Amino acid sequence: MGIIGSTIKLFKATAFQAGKDFFEVTNEDIAGKWAVFFFYPADFTFVCPTELEDLGEKYAMLQSMGVEVYAVSTDTHFSHKAWHDTSEKIGKLQYAFLGDQMHTLSNNFGVLRDGVGLADRATFVVDPDGVIQIMEITCEGVGRNANELTRKIKAAQYVRAHPGEVCPAAWEEGAETLAPSLDLVGKI
Amino acid sequence: MGIIGSTIKLFKATAFQAGKDFFEVTNEDIAGKWAVFFFYPADFTFVCPTELEDLGEKYAMLQSMGVEVYAVSTDTHFSHKAWHDTSEKIGKLQYAFLGDQMHTLSNNFGVLRDGVGLADRATFVVDPDGVIQIMEITCEGVGRNANELTRKIKAAQYVRAHPGEVCPAAWEEGAETLAPSLDLVGKI
Amino acid sequence: MGIIGSTIKLFKATAFQAGKDFFEVTNEDIAGKWAVFFFYPADFTFVCPTELEDLGEKYAMLQSMGVEVYAVSTDTHFSHKAWHDTSEKIGKLQYAFLGDQMHTLSNNFGVLRDGVGLADRATFVVDPDGVIQIMEITCEGVGRNANELTRKIKAAQYVRAHPGEVCPAAWEEGAETLAPSLDLVGKI
Amino acid sequence: MGIIGSTIKLFKATAFQAGKDFFEVTNEDIAGKWAVFFFYPADFTFVCPTELEDLGEKYAMLQSMGVEVYAVSTDTHFSHKAWHDTSEKIGKLQYAFLGDQMHTLSNNFGVLRDGVGLADRATFVVDPDGVIQIMEITCEGVGRNANELTRKIKAAQYVRAHPGEVCPAAWEEGAETLAPSLDLVGKI
Amino acid sequence: MGIIGSTIKLFKATAFQAGKDFFEVTNEDIAGKWAVFFFYPADFTFVCPTELEDLGEKYAMLQSMGVEVYAVSTDTHFSHKAWHDTSEKIGKLQYAFLGDQMHTLSNNFGVLRDGVGLADRATFVVDPDGVIQIMEITCEGVGRNANELTRKIKAAQYVRAHPGEVCPAAWEEGAETLAPSLDLVGKI
Amino acid sequence: MGIIGSTIKLFKATAFQAGKDFFEVTNEDIAGKWAVFFFYPADFTFVCPTELEDLGEKYAMLQSMGVEVYAVSTDTHFSHKAWHDTSEKIGKLQYAFLGDQMHTLSNNFGVLRDGVGLADRATFVVDPDGVIQIMEITCEGVGRNANELTRKIKAAQYVRAHPGEVCPAAWEEGAETLAPSLDLVGKI
Amino acid sequence: MGIIGSTIKLFKATAFQAGKDFFEVTNEDIAGKWAVFFFYPADFTFVCPTELEDLGEKYAMLQSMGVEVYAVSTDTHFSHKAWHDTSEKIGKLQYAFLGDQMHTLSNNFGVLRDGVGLADRATFVVDPDGVIQIMEITCEGVGRNANELTRKIKAAQYVRAHPGEVCPAAWEEGAETLAPSLDLVGKI
Amino acid sequence: MGIIGSTIKLFKATAFQAGKDFFEVTNEDIAGKWAVFFFYPADFTFVCPTELEDLGEKYAMLQSMGVEVYAVSTDTHFSHKAWHDTSEKIGKLQYAFLGDQMHTLSNNFGVLRDGVGLADRATFVVDPDGVIQIMEITCEGVGRNANELTRKIKAAQYVRAHPGEVCPAAWEEGAETLAPSLDLVGKI
Amino acid sequence: MGIIGSTIKLFKATAFQAGKDFFEVTNEDIAGKWAVFFFYPADFTFVCPTELEDLGEKYAMLQSMGVEVYAVSTDTHFSHKAWHDTSEKIGKLQYAFLGDQMHTLSNNFGVLRDGVGLADRATFVVDPDGVIQIMEITCEGVGRNANELTRKIKAAQYVRAHPGEVCPAAWEEGAETLAPSLDLVGKI
Amino acid sequence: MGIIGSTIKLFKATAFQAGKDFFEVTNEDIAGKWAVFFFYPADFTFVCPTELEDLGEKYAMLQSMGVEVYAVSTDTHFSHKAWHDTSEKIGKLQYAFLGDQMHTLSNNFGVLRDGVGLADRATFVVDPDGVIQIMEITCEGVGRNANELTRKIKAAQYVRAHPGEVCPAAWEEGAETLAPSLDLVGKI
Repeated sequence: MGIIGSTIKLFKATAFQAGKDFFEVTNEDIAGKWAVFFFYPADFTFVCPTELEDLGEKYAMLQSMGVEVYAVSTDTHFSHKAWHDTSEKIGKLQYAFLGDQMHTLSNNFGVLRDGVGLADRATFVVDPDGVIQIMEITCEGVGRNANELTRKIKAAQYVRAHPGEVCPAAWEEGAETLAPSLDLVGKI
Repeated sequence: MGIIGSTIKLFKATAFQAGKDFFEVTNEDIAGKWAVFFFYPADFTFVCPTELEDLGEKYAMLQSMGVEVYAVSTDTHFSHKAWHDTSEKIGKLQYAFLGDQMHTLSNNFGVLRDGVGLADRATFVVDPDGVIQIMEITCEGVGRNANELTRKIKAAQYVRAHPGEVCPAAWEEGAETLAPSLDLVGKI
Repeated sequence: MGIIGSTIKLFKATAFQAGKDFFEVTNEDIAGKWAVFFFYPADFTFVCPTELEDLGEKYAMLQSMGVEVYAVSTDTHFSHKAWHDTSEKIGKLQYAFLGDQMHTLSNNFGVLRDGVGLADRATFVVDPDGVIQIMEITCEGVGRNANELTRKIKAAQYVRAHPGEVCPAAWEEGAETLAPSLDLVGKI
Repeated sequence: MGIIGSTIKLFKATAFQAGKDFFEVTNEDIAGKWAVFFFYPADFTFVCPTELEDLGEKYAMLQSMGVEVYAVSTDTHFSHKAWHDTSEKIGKLQYAFLGDQMHTLSNNFGVLRDGVGLADRATFVVDPDGVIQIMEITCEGVGRNANELTRKIKAAQYVRAHPGEVCPAAWEEGAETLAPSLDLVGKI
Repeated sequence: MGIIGSTIKLFKATAFQAGKDFFEVTNEDIAGKWAVFFFYPADFTFVCPTELEDLGEKYAMLQSMGVEVYAVSTDTHFSHKAWHDTSEKIGKLQYAFLGDQMHTLSNNFGVLRDGVGLADRATFVVDPDGVIQIMEITCEGVGRNANELTRKIKAAQYVRAHPGEVCPAAWEEGAETLAPSLDLVGKI
Repeated sequence: MGIIGSTIKLFKATAFQAGKDFFEVTNEDIAGKWAVFFFYPADFTFVCPTELEDLGEKYAMLQSMGVEVYAVSTDTHFSHKAWHDTSEKIGKLQYAFLGDQMHTLSNNFGVLRDGVGLADRATFVVDPDGVIQIMEITCEGVGRNANELTRKIKAAQYVRAHPGEVCPAAWEEGAETLAPSLDLVGKI
Repeated sequence: MGIIGSTIKLFKATAFQAGKDFFEVTNEDIAGKWAVFFFYPADFTFVCPTELEDLGEKYAMLQSMGVEVYAVSTDTHFSHKAWHDTSEKIGKLQYAFLGDQMHTLSNNFGVLRDGVGLADRATFVVDPDGVIQIMEITCEGVGRNANELTRKIKAAQYVRAHPGEVCPAAWEEGAETLAPSLDLVGKI
Repeated sequence: MGIIGSTIKLFKATAFQAGKDFFEVTNEDIAGKWAVFFFYPADFTFVCPTELEDLGEKYAMLQSMGVEVYAVSTDTHFSHKAWHDTSEKIGKLQYAFLGDQMHTLSNNFGVLRDGVGLADRATFVVDPDGVIQIMEITCEGVGRNANELTRKIKAAQYVRAHPGEVCPAAWEEGAETLAPSLDLVGKI
Repeated sequence: MGIIGSTIKLFKATAFQAGKDFFEVTNEDIAGKWAVFFFYPADFTFVCPTELEDLGEKYAMLQSMGVEVYAVSTDTHFSHKAWHDTSEKIGKLQYAFLGDQMHTLSNNFGVLRDGVGLADRATFVVDPDGVIQIMEITCEGVGRNANELTRKIKAAQYVRAHPGEVCPAAWEEGAETLAPSLDLVGKI
Repeated sequence: MGIIGSTIKLFKATAFQAGKDFFEVTNEDIAGKWAVFFFYPADFTFVCPTELEDLGEKYAMLQSMGVEVYAVSTDTHFSHKAWHDTSEKIGKLQYAFLGDQMHTLSNNFGVLRDGVGLADRATFVVDPDGVIQIMEITCEGVGRNANELTRKIKAAQYVRAHPGEVCPAAWEEGAETLAPSLDLVGKI
């Protein structure tokens, strides 16, 4: 029932990505890689472009970490392309935009706003096994922070790579980690 | 159905807080104030104290912002007190710990791990109307970041106080905000 | 169960119309007037603009006949405005566009394409009592004809105004009508 | 759930056609050809004959286009023949009339008027795969237009024959069509 | 559950009768009189006119006995009028024809042929209280006999008028009847 | 659902017939022959013997036509025998009486009077395939007519023997029949 | 659930009794008196008359004891009268016979033989409050004994009249009874 | 549904019998023999011992007839033994007592008194096929009669041994029986 | 769901107690007093009398403490009296025995052995509010200990009388108790 | 349905035991040995440590008797260890503590307090076949007695080892036992 630790559900969506023809993305396409699903309410609106731009600045680094990025709204791929063609901020972005006009992804991740038809401002990090490891949602009007997202993905990758170690609060790449053991119980 | 924008459910829990006798906290007690519910898996374990300490360092500031903090695990209030008495890190903390051995809060917020009986590493920010505005969950082994939490609460408070303005990505207190209008549609 | 003769269901949608701020349209707003609901699949696509332009050329006449026109797709009002801002053909149109990203209207009129999230190319004419009198749907790739639509609305208005008369096939304004009576049974 | 794009349901009806003995028509008989189902309320009534005559004038052309025509009412084939024998207008018609006294076809196509037992004034165009591609219904008293029907069938046949092209609004045979492509998105 | 002795169900049908405009007949209209419901399969067919003519010859007598006659088929009142206008045999008939294209009467009396949409060749005699007293059905191809029908109605009227008497087999008007009593038990 | 054209249901009953020991009759015994089921309310009562006697006079003729006759009431076979032994009228009858104290036959044919436990005065003619072809029920106090019954059986046998012909109203053996054809539609 | 001690259910039956016209008997008619319901399989059969005759010899005595007797089979009251008229043994009987062709009484007392439609050979004694006090059933072929029945009714009447006393095994009128008390427990 | 003619249900009970250790009795143990189940309310009470003693006097004869006897109450086998040890009347009895503290037998035979937990004063005779042939129940305070019971068992054994013969009312061993035949119907 | 802390259910039973006539005991009779329900399998058996005797020795003391004692088995009150009359050990006992042949109490307290019809060797202590405070069950063959039972009842009475104090393990009357407080948490 | 005699249900729990790493205990681990499940409300509380200490004093003896001991509360194994580390009384205990934060064991044994999330003060003794033989629960504030528990386990082991013998009330090791037999019935 918990979100964290659950496997993502089936989906199929048409994507727009700069320099490519429209293409389909399904849950199978993301297997074997880390993926970020970055939901936002609507094309052509206000906070969204700043968040999308903020995330765009980390895209090269995330790719180098083996992380694919999918921006998702309930707009169509046609609308995504039109936005990309006409907005300077959005026109620079290199990652894919999924058209979720069927609401499949928004419902799968539980972020469709009741009575509105738009997605929440929600981020999900999925590991190469299709399991959700990190999530975050902020209310309308509160922008997310790509820096912090990147920090948490690094920690999750570290933990996956180093069984037996855990990353303390506000851990940054390179900082010390902890190795739980019986003797540590009640001692931290 | 969505978590963000929903009102918190009824609960009643016994709390331990430094310098007080045990006391009851219910959903009614938190009305009219901002509240943070900071879930963690278990007393006497590893990542938890670093996160609780990290949050502890922001407690004074959060209080000055009108935000109350509740740490929650499925341990009892007896166990919370015992941990406070015996751990140096925990012993310094001034905010309240709720005993959720009934699993009410963990189930209410959807963060009880199936087949484990422990809560996720999850944070929820509730506004004075009892509405959840911000949430975050990280997998086992990935510590949260009280700095980022504080940044988002400030943004949420700003937005509540200034209808008609929204905070862009990675906004910090004092930075510029946006004022959506018809003319801005498709222009950012 | 039949569509013709049924009353339209409740709806509420945000509209974009040239020269106005966004505004809400509900089933109550259309009471007392004739209305055309002109569904099309998506903003920024191909056949749609020719149909919308063709209909645009009749808009003045339809208004003079007391008929309001609503173009509807599952895009948002933000997207409608962006399309209006960037497309020459669409930019000239004066009637309202409804954002149906909740799929309410498309479902109400039974024209949401299964597994696609887009509306059919469908037209509905609603009389001042909110009753559907005329409908038409064409498959993908076949454009409608605003001329014929206008002809049928005139006939429906004539019949409403002249109880006891009916308009024969391909009737044009001013042509003769028929007055059914017992004696005519089996005589035409 | 949508009508357009759905496959016609099973039916079996007895037909009358000038110059033939009564014969059965089923959904299997129409496979591989285009078909028009032309519903009307009742034999021996008023608007109906003008519409049936109007359609009769296009019958030769429709046959040359590979389109079969079936007029349908809830009368029996006996009644159809008697009407054909005694009405000058109807006596000239060469296409088949289906007896739908069981209401099967009227229910299959959703056009049986509640509490009346008569069909709507409804037209359905079915392609050689048995899929409904075009439909139209007008209220009592408003006659249809065989000219426009023919125009739409030509467009649907053109689109079927030329994958990748679509017919704009009010397209007439021989006029230009459109070829959708990524580059056209947002450009019409 | 038995038919004989049951009260007729609600119905409403449009009637054609020579020399009158179309009119409605309901179950309430027949209260207080004897009524014959004379079902037949279809207008313009074969056995039916001979039966209807045979019944027509008794109509004056039946009226003088206070018995109203309703011929019923699943054709419309339009079809009934057209048949009356064009058939010599039917054109002479003075009783009413009910249009049962909704199948209400045929279903009420249990005589709608499965998978055909036509009524059985069935007769029902209803007394002034709306109770069915006599019924008869014959298979396709076997004509009824108005003489015998009249004989039975006379017997039923006699029995209603003379409580305590019963009419023996093949009783004809004026013949002797029986008066049951304890002493007759086992003595006939 | 209609009675005419339906196949008789399973039954098993003990029969009394003059000059034989009691014997069982089931639905299988009547296969391959025409059969008349002649229901009447009760042994030792009033109208019944006149009807049974009237039918008795046709029994030889019916047998020569290949028709078997079964009188049926809800009395036992013991009671049937006792009646036969003690009543002059009944004592002459040669056909079989079925004991239906289980109500199986009365229920099968739908003629058990509610709240009484006695059968209606009902006749059913079953063809060699076990299909009901003719039925008749009269109310209490109205005797049937074996003459008319015989006339109808002859017509039903004629129609079965001469596919393509039908017997008009009040047809008697040897009279003319009709041969339906397309050309006759609307011509009688 | 037990039979003894339960109140008899509602019934209504037509009775035959020597020297009277047919009359109705219901559960209300037996209130305030003792009653014997004496079921037997069928009129005109074998063991039954010996049992009925045996019971007939006690009828005067039973009446003097305030006990009414009802013989019951699934035959009609007509049949009961006919049997009474024609059988020497039965003709002498003075008590009432109930016609249970509806099977109401046989079902009420649970003695209808499955798949047969005849009652068991069963006796029930009902007290003036309508409560069953004594019952007995024997299989086919085993006759009952009116002597023993009378003995048991006398004992039941004695016990009702003398609260605090009970009749030992095989008690006969006038013999000693027992008066239970605490001191007798374990002492007999 | 009827008791007579039904097969006894499964049971298992612990028995006490003079001169034996406790032993189990099940439905299988009684197969192939006649059996009497003699229910009574409770050990250590009043009428019961007189009935049990009365039956005890017939036990030798019943055994010689191949009939086994089981006394049954809802007491335990421990209680049965204690009663046998302490009561003079009971101490003489040689047949088995079944402990029915589980209420299985009392429920199987339908004689558990509602809201009391004690069995009725009921007797059942079961034939060697396990089929109940004779039953009897008397109310509290009315003792049974072992003489009459023996008479009925002899009749039932006679009927079983002599197919085609039946025992008249109050038949005693050696007396005449009846042989039913068609000719006897209505003649006794 | 838990037994301890639940209120006892409704019951009604007949009791035997030395020197009294049989009397009824219900749940209402025990209100306002402490009560012990002492279940045992069966009268006249083995371990039971030793346990009942052991409890008997404490009866005077328990009465002086305001505690009433009820021994309960599924035997009747008749059997209880007989046992009391014939057993030396049982004959000395002064407390009441309840007859639970209906199994009401055994089921209420959940101690009826499946498939046996006897109660467990179970003890329940009920406080003056009808709430179960202490319970104990031992398997067949293991006797209870009235000493320990008395100790626990004293502790329960002490705790009820002294809110804020608790009795440690193996506490005996007069020994020290504990007074829980925040400061004691984790300190014992 | 009874607890005594039922087999324990499936469980899996993490255990803390002095001198060992955390380990899992399941229902399979306890097969083949006697086991005591000793539930208590919460770590760091008041009565509990006195009971746990009291039991600790018997642990060596119980082990020598082949009995394993499991203390169980709804605290985690982390909390159990922390308590052991910090409490003098608890720190001496050598038996295992199971973490039941999932409430599985508390629910399995029916001792979870409604609305509290803590276990009752309950003891269960399970034999080597996994069958519960002895149980005891006391209310809050009443401590158990390890002496009496040990006495009962010895008795249960004796009975298991000596079929045919039973231990009387308050039996102590070495004291006399009873051997039930038919002759003893009613004699103790």
